[in-house]
Amino acid sequence: MAFNQALPKLVAEAIQSIVGDGPSGLHEPNFRGNELVYLKDCIDSTYVSSVGEFVDRFENDLAVFTGAKHAVAVVNGTAALHIALLLAGVEEGDEVLLPTLTFVATANAVKYCNAHPHFVDSSAQTFGIDPHVLSDYLHTATEMRGGQCVNHRTGRVIRAVLPMHTFGHPVDIDGLMAVARDFNIRLVEDAAESLGSYVEGTHTGTFGMAGTLSFNGNKTITTGGGGAILTNCTELAARAKHLTTTAKIAHRWNFVHDEVGFNYRLPNLNAALGCAQLEKLPEYLMEQRGLYECYATAFSEIEGVSVAREPPGCTSNYWLQTLILDDENASQRDSILLATNEIGMMTRPVWGLMHRLPMFLEASRAPLPVAESLERKLINIPSSPGLGRNS
Amino acid sequence: MAFNQALPKLVAEAIQSIVGDGPSGLHEPNFRGNELVYLKDCIDSTYVSSVGEFVDRFENDLAVFTGAKHAVAVVNGTAALHIALLLAGVEEGDEVLLPTLTFVATANAVKYCNAHPHFVDSSAQTFGIDPHVLSDYLHTATEMRGGQCVNHRTGRVIRAVLPMHTFGHPVDIDGLMAVARDFNIRLVEDAAESLGSYVEGTHTGTFGMAGTLSFNGNKTITTGGGGAILTNCTELAARAKHLTTTAKIAHRWNFVHDEVGFNYRLPNLNAALGCAQLEKLPEYLMEQRGLYECYATAFSEIEGVSVAREPPGCTSNYWLQTLILDDENASQRDSILLATNEIGMMTRPVWGLMHRLPMFLEASRAPLPVAESLERKLINIPSSPGLGRNS
Repeated sequence: MAFNQALPKLVAEAIQSIVGDGPSGLHEPNFRGNELVYLKDCIDSTYVSSVGEFVDRFENDLAVFTGAKHAVAVVNGTAALHIALLLAGVEEGDEVLLPTLTFVATANAVKYCNAHPHFVDSSAQTFGIDPHVLSDYLHTATEMRGGQCVNHRTGRVIRAVLPMHTFGHPVDIDGLMAVARDFNIRLVEDAAESLGSYVEGTHTGTFGMAGTLSFNGNKTITTGGGGAILTNCTELAARAKHLTTTAKIAHRWNFVHDEVGFNYRLPNLNAALGCAQLEKLPEYLMEQRGLYECYATAFSEIEGVSVAREPPGCTSNYWLQTLILDDENASQRDSILLATNEIGMMTRPVWGLMHRLPMFLEASRAPLPVAESLERKLINIPSSPGLGRNS
Repeated sequence: MAFNQALPKLVAEAIQSIVGDGPSGLHEPNFRGNELVYLKDCIDSTYVSSVGEFVDRFENDLAVFTGAKHAVAVVNGTAALHIALLLAGVEEGDEVLLPTLTFVATANAVKYCNAHPHFVDSSAQTFGIDPHVLSDYLHTATEMRGGQCVNHRTGRVIRAVLPMHTFGHPVDIDGLMAVARDFNIRLVEDAAESLGSYVEGTHTGTFGMAGTLSFNGNKTITTGGGGAILTNCTELAARAKHLTTTAKIAHRWNFVHDEVGFNYRLPNLNAALGCAQLEKLPEYLMEQRGLYECYATAFSEIEGVSVAREPPGCTSNYWLQTLILDDENASQRDSILLATNEIGMMTRPVWGLMHRLPMFLEASRAPLPVAESLERKLINIPSSPGLGRNS
């Protein structure tokens, strides 16, 4: 390994060799299936809003695809996270462990519960929470009081851990479940990025008390805006449905609500798009994997950089393709970002780490050396299904 | 006025004489325009999510229609209320005055700000907050401390008043603005139900610091789910856009956020539907007004009941047509609900009053005799545009 001065140019050329010369976004949606047919059916039915056949069907199709017992469709992944934390019993004043290397919605959802994010470090292999490091940290930073894990420094109960399956690569979920058991912490999965990703054949988002999906426009499939809560617990699914539909008590004509609820139901119009998208998901997953293979081959010749691959025992959906710079070349990250974006190849670094954002500066945090190293070394590159098919 | 034993049967027959024999919902959407064309354009563009031409156009069209300087499109009316209260500076621990006679979203939005709803009474004429009664109440229940209106009982600052234009009938906004000025309280309008309603020619939702609209499936026009924030202040509009798009700082590739924001942006797909719907709004408004006239005529012959009409000086959109039982016949409300729903004519009472819902039992409240009387006497009847055109 050595400093490779030509890296920005070589990276740009390697990407172009796969995706072609035209401008290329980071992750663009494909509409090859029944999208227009179902949207027309939806309009013809006049059910475009919070009730309708497509939203029921979308939930059922999601449950079948993921193997979750229940899926509850909501307005976006952020809303799904908010509700999933409430399902896990997160209350005002609690702390929730989550990676500092994540999209801001993961941390914001904790704040929506009036709870406190507590940032922990990532694994260099999965990019998600490292369970071994987490366990060591909790042994030093917390103590068990009355069966609850309490943060020494703040005196607050650590109620839940919220791992995220970064760019579609599954976290070490078995390791995290063991830590959660040891410390009596509830586990909720942020699977926003990992629809179609599995750990030993089991779909991400179905291990914890609840898991969440996102169908934003940049995800493997999209509903415009949308998300879902996955759970294997029938009672929690019913509660999720209740909380996301203004906590209204069912009645023929009375409007009475029994708690502070939310207007988080996915509209039937968006679910119609989702039903069509879901039909093509296996095709998109194959293409995203195929694109990884193209990139892996193209970058195998270039010194100083590699392409992130799925962790052992896991199937990644390869949602966002990711370059890893080696330490000697990490200083070239911004030059590579510039060289690629300048020629219309959209690339970006990871999200600004959560613990450095102004609203989370006071939050509790573990030592975060791996996340800080990954921030310097990771670059996401064009990842849309369909790219690279003719290369 | 006297007890009219035949009222349930007469009401059912009168409704049927206008809307026909078939089943009739309370307020169903109409899709007569460019809905499918614009949805196809949206899919073809691949911009279905948080960015796109339709969402910009929808905001512009809304601003033009309402005369507001700015409109910011969001995921639903509840989200609009939440952000509008934040724009008005509502903070944790504040109180917000709002009618007990409203949909639960009005009160929930206050809770999302970690503020406290404070319920006040309605006018028998507008169904919305009565400014004269409110002023008298505030003189006895509050005091000014350091220029701020403070609730005697709780010691909390009353930061804002949130009137709602009930069923589309404008509240006495001039009266409320005077009260708000007198007590240094900020005014935010819940105009979810009143798109197309005016006070002396000025559109509802444009009087306060901010106003909110809803495009739920039951509203005059729908985006599936959707809402908007109206404001005449450019700075507040920019802040609304920032807060509703995760408070991300604009940058070519960096993802950095400067406060706890929300994922509340209206998807372009839903905005495409909204653009088509908005083109037909003048037609729907004429039809809703025409339906009122049909009902007013049909019910003029029936003793014990009348049809709600727009307050003097105001133009109502007549979103939900409303029967008012006189005192002698209020006891027949549930018989009328049963008689009409049994034959497929959907009717319903007003929402269960907020101050009686379990989560708001401890909230501050004024005496509420008018709202409690209206709850016993009001019935919403089938109101969709297009009904009654052939009667």
